[in-house]
Order: sequence, then structure tokens, then C-alpha cells
Amino acid sequence: MNEILSVKNTTIKEIKKLHKKKYRVESQQYLLEGFHLIEEAVKYNNVLTQVLVTQRGYQQWGAWLEAKAIADVSLVSDEVMKSISDLPTPQGILAVVAMAEAVITDWQGAWLLLDNVQDPGNVGTMVRTADAAGLSGIILGEGTADIYSTKTLRSMQGSHFHLPVVSMNLKDAISVFKEQTIPVYGTELNEFAVSYQDVSASQNFALIMGNEGQGVEKELLDLTDKNLYIPIKGHAESLNVGIAAGILMFHLTV
Amino acid sequence: MNEILSVKNTTIKEIKKLHKKKYRVESQQYLLEGFHLIEEAVKYNNVLTQVLVTQRGYQQWGAWLEAKAIADVSLVSDEVMKSISDLPTPQGILAVVAMAEAVITDWQGAWLLLDNVQDPGNVGTMVRTADAAGLSGIILGEGTADIYSTKTLRSMQGSHFHLPVVSMNLKDAISVFKEQTIPVYGTELNEFAVSYQDVSASQNFALIMGNEGQGVEKELLDLTDKNLYIPIKGHAESLNVGIAAGILMFHLTV
Repeated sequence: MNEILSVKNTTIKEIKKLHKKKYRVESQQYLLEGFHLIEEAVKYNNVLTQVLVTQRGYQQWGAWLEAKAIADVSLVSDEVMKSISDLPTPQGILAVVAMAEAVITDWQGAWLLLDNVQDPGNVGTMVRTADAAGLSGIILGEGTADIYSTKTLRSMQGSHFHLPVVSMNLKDAISVFKEQTIPVYGTELNEFAVSYQDVSASQNFALIMGNEGQGVEKELLDLTDKNLYIPIKGHAESLNVGIAAGILMFHLTV
Repeated sequence: MNEILSVKNTTIKEIKKLHKKKYRVESQQYLLEGFHLIEEAVKYNNVLTQVLVTQRGYQQWGAWLEAKAIADVSLVSDEVMKSISDLPTPQGILAVVAMAEAVITDWQGAWLLLDNVQDPGNVGTMVRTADAAGLSGIILGEGTADIYSTKTLRSMQGSHFHLPVVSMNLKDAISVFKEQTIPVYGTELNEFAVSYQDVSASQNFALIMGNEGQGVEKELLDLTDKNLYIPIKGHAESLNVGIAAGILMFHLTV
């Protein structure tokens, strides 16, 4: 097993670049930290191109790494691990994972579409919630935060291994749903829209959630079958977009 | 108007201490950043003991500060503002606010109880969501994150001005609800509990949400009328506690 003790090691420098989206896109790889997520990646047949593990991490997970025949495992110092991790307390194991391109083959089902959602935590939480609600997949429109940042990966908790998350122009996606006669619901922050409680749960729908400040783009709202809102009863001005998505997805799914 | 140009100024040093809970508790004051939240504080009759504003902030909000007769306003340099703010881009106005002790006079209504919820963002989001769902108030049990940290304040978006948020032992709170014949619902992560869909909406209830990892403490679950769970349909192991709280509160309120 390879051993890396210097933070200036070339491999380490290359791996660190994966904190930037540009390098993730170029190399089609991303960083995944923590045993639980790495185990989930392998369980769902993702390729680990490289694994870094500390001495203590190896004691804990060495047997698993061998059993799974993970090829490229390097033992690293705590200092090296700390230099890559963006956690206050690094977990002792970190993998470079090859991106698996998701392709939608069957458009029937329930979908979540994200229009320009900017906060990585919100995007991650919504993917996790869509998974929990039994949705078919998620479509990321332009401007939506990258799912492969460490922050999004942490809040997704591995849900991107469970259901397809694809990037696509949302107008094109809406066209496909319309062809398939799947109802498309936009979301609005005002009471001119339809209360979500007046819409019944169903097997097939596409729900669009929008930007934290601006909501769903007007052009998209004009293309939907219905636009929904959640009635606010107290003095709060609005709901967090992730919370709103959770309420809607759990209400709309059968 | 007082002018402060040095980050080493004694007043500035004192204000910075309010980033620590210990000093907030001692002085019964907290930091609030951004015009929107400060405006909301004043609208709900909170006392601003001090306001710091940059040159640019004063141009924007000086007239408002004068109209509201805010007494202790200091003009500070951008550098001083940056040294206090924990935002990447400080907003140009920051207030020291006196804590207003919330007292529950009427226990009827719908309540959210937080048992050892640790993440400041989760606590803040749940207070904001409780407000939006029209709840009567929030009770913070021991171990729950302080609502006066800057992170919680940001995610609450001023909802603590709208409804009472009190700290109290949750067993004591449950006793009061029982005396008042208000149903108390715990939440569990397993299917031995009752599906939330089998519980009807009502005017009065107390809903307990628990710690991110451990859920609601067993001792509390034994005291409730019912323990609820949200059925998970996909492959996600659980929901974020804030999302779960949102789904439950919007389902349970009339």
C-alpha cells in the first residue's frame, strides 16, 4: 500500500483540486468523505478511483477495503487528511469517485425540477427528501448548485446514488413532460396560485422549486399546468425552499 | 454621532464578545445583522441598545434610524464592521438587541418542542417554519442550540419576534400540556410508531422533534400520547429534522 506523508505530494495536490467545480467537470470525478457515504457508493456500483485512509481509518475499514478489492488505496498522515478535508474533524477516509452519468429512460413517475437553486445545502436536502418521498428523479436546471460539492454531498447523504440526478434545460424537460401528459406544477410565493391542498396526490407529476430569493422564473411558470403555493398562517414571510419542497413532495406523492 | 475607526476600540471588543453564548447570557443581549431583521426587531418593540452602521449603511438607513429615534448609533469603518460580522459581505448595519423574555400565558394552541436539536441552522429553520405554520410557540429543551447565535438568527429570519420561544425542561412542559388535555406527539424514526397520515389536524397539540442523530429521548417518548413517524418510500435512511418538522407541522395544523 502506497504511503503519503506530505501535503505537498503531487497526488494530494491533484486531489485537492477536486474542491473546485472546474476540475470536477474536467476529470469527471469528485471527493466523497466518510465511510458511510463511501460504502453507499460501492453498494450502488460506483467506481472509486482512489481511496485515502489514515492509520486509524485503516484499522477500522482496512478489512472492508480489502474485501471490496478497492485497488488504489493510500495510507495518509492525519495532517494530509486534514489538508484535504473540509470538516473540522476529518473522518479518516476519503475517496475519489468517478461521476456516473444518469440517464432518464422512463419519464413516467414523480420528478423534482430545480430552477436556479443556489445554496448547496438546500439542493442536497431536496435531493435527500425527494429520495425519501419516493420520487423518480431530480432535474437540475441551469444555475442550480453543483451536486458534487462537499457541502451538497453531505446534505444529500448518498441519495444521488439512489435516484437519477440529471442536468437539463428546464424548458426542454417541461416539453417532454407535456408530451407524456404528466402534469407540471410550478411554485409561487403568492396567493394567486393554487393552494397545494387543493391538488391531489398522484403517481405522475413534475414539481418545480425555484431560486431562494426570486422563486421560479416567470417564463417557466407560464409553461406549467398549475402553479402551487403553501398558505402561510403566521407572520413569517416565506418558507425555506427545502422545507417547502418537503411539504409539497410528501403531499403530492401517493 | 459617535465614530469608531479602530477594531481595537473597547466598545467594539465588548460587542464582539456577543458572538459567545456566555456573554449573551450574562448581558442578556445579542447581535443582529442586516437592515431587514433590525427593522423587524423594532417593529415588534424590541430595544436596540446599540447600532453600528457604515458610511454607506448610513446613507441608506440614516433617515430610518433618525425617524425611529434610535439613541446609540455609531458610524464605523468598513474594517470595523468586517471584524464583527461573520458574513463574507457585511450588510453595513448591525444592532445589539436586548433579549425579550418570552412568557407563556396561554398554553392552548399548537406547540413545537425541540429536544436536544444541535444544529443552529436546523433550530432556526424550525422556528421559522413553526411561525409560517401558525403555531403558538416553541419550547426549547435542554441541549438545544441557542437561538441567539448569528447562524440561528439568520435562518429564523425574525420569526422569534413573532411568537414566543422559551427555554424549559421538556418533562415539565409535557406535564402542563397533559393538565390542559392537549395531545403530545413524539416523533420516531421507526415504523412501530403511528404514521402521521393517521393523525388528524387540530387546533391544539404539542409536537416534539429530536436530536439529529438520536431522535427524541426515550424517556420523553414514554410520556407522549402518540409517537409519529413519516413513512420513507425511497432508499434514504431518514429525513433532515427540519424537513420532517415542516411536513408534520403543516399536516397537523388546521
